Amino acid sequence: MTITDDEPVIDLHSDDYFMRRALDEALRAYQQGEVPVGAVIVSDGQVIARGYNQVEMLKDATAHAEMLSLTAAQEAAGDWRLTDCDLYVTKEPCPMCAGAIVHCRVRRVIFGCPSPKDGAAGSGFVNLLQNPSLNHSCDVSHGILAEDCAALLRRFFQEARDKHRGGDPSQIDG
Amino acid sequence: MTITDDEPVIDLHSDDYFMRRALDEALRAYQQGEVPVGAVIVSDGQVIARGYNQVEMLKDATAHAEMLSLTAAQEAAGDWRLTDCDLYVTKEPCPMCAGAIVHCRVRRVIFGCPSPKDGAAGSGFVNLLQNPSLNHSCDVSHGILAEDCAALLRRFFQEARDKHRGGDPSQIDG
Repeated sequence: MTITDDEPVIDLHSDDYFMRRALDEALRAYQQGEVPVGAVIVSDGQVIARGYNQVEMLKDATAHAEMLSLTAAQEAAGDWRLTDCDLYVTKEPCPMCAGAIVHCRVRRVIFGCPSPKDGAAGSGFVNLLQNPSLNHSCDVSHGILAEDCAALLRRFFQEARDKHRGGDPSQIDG
Repeated sequence: MTITDDEPVIDLHSDDYFMRRALDEALRAYQQGEVPVGAVIVSDGQVIARGYNQVEMLKDATAHAEMLSLTAAQEAAGDWRLTDCDLYVTKEPCPMCAGAIVHCRVRRVIFGCPSPKDGAAGSGFVNLLQNPSLNHSCDVSHGILAEDCAALLRRFFQEARDKHRGGDPSQIDG
């Protein structure tokens, strides 16, 4: 088969590719009525762990996509040091998750949309991923598929507001 | 039996009493070769959850005393909202744990010794427990049995250093 100009080449090692996998996870959260945030952790070009927000399902306020994927990655690696791992997450990590990422010594963090109010990776009130007081600093990239990541969150919260008002969320096109 | 002046009355609802229970947990961590930090969570004057640092045992860098006790308390309460709960921990919480405590809406946090470098509850570079950017603020007390809490940590790290140098840690009196 010859690749033509009409067929985009998918780079299986690009930030876009892995952020799409994180978005797949966010969609799973959305479908289960959870705030739609998803994450994957990549080592040597392979996804070794994935997670999506499950706060309501697990009745655990710490069950964020990043925390669940970190635990799964540590299990996969057999080590709490994830020094050769990169974490892709659809939304900027909160302080809890950023603190956990630093503890696990994740090499690089790539997030989709910013979270100006409570983000802890540069766009909020504190950057815990690159803080001289802590014993590890991550490389950080952001803005990857940011609009897709943000649109899913907006849709979720708009539907939640409409539901609260007694509207029909199925009529809303995010 | 009559209580005399020689027999101190133990106040079963005091901060000292519950910090002693957190210290019991820290001692369990110490005995298992983990950095000795312990926590208990109290609701209506009863300990509903406890935890101690298990990072090495579980090979999970997020397995701090606070995180494990928060998960156990949410399980006990059947809810991620711990709005009538108080958390006692022997050392000032790190950013990850402070972020988790805020997510769970813990009413009050009582910690033993400060952690000036990475503490996130007032004595370090950021106070996440009382931050206007976040959606919950805790009451915070500190200094309860601080010297006992710090002494156990000092002993652990001194022994670890001596072991590293080939000394005999059993000879060290913390």
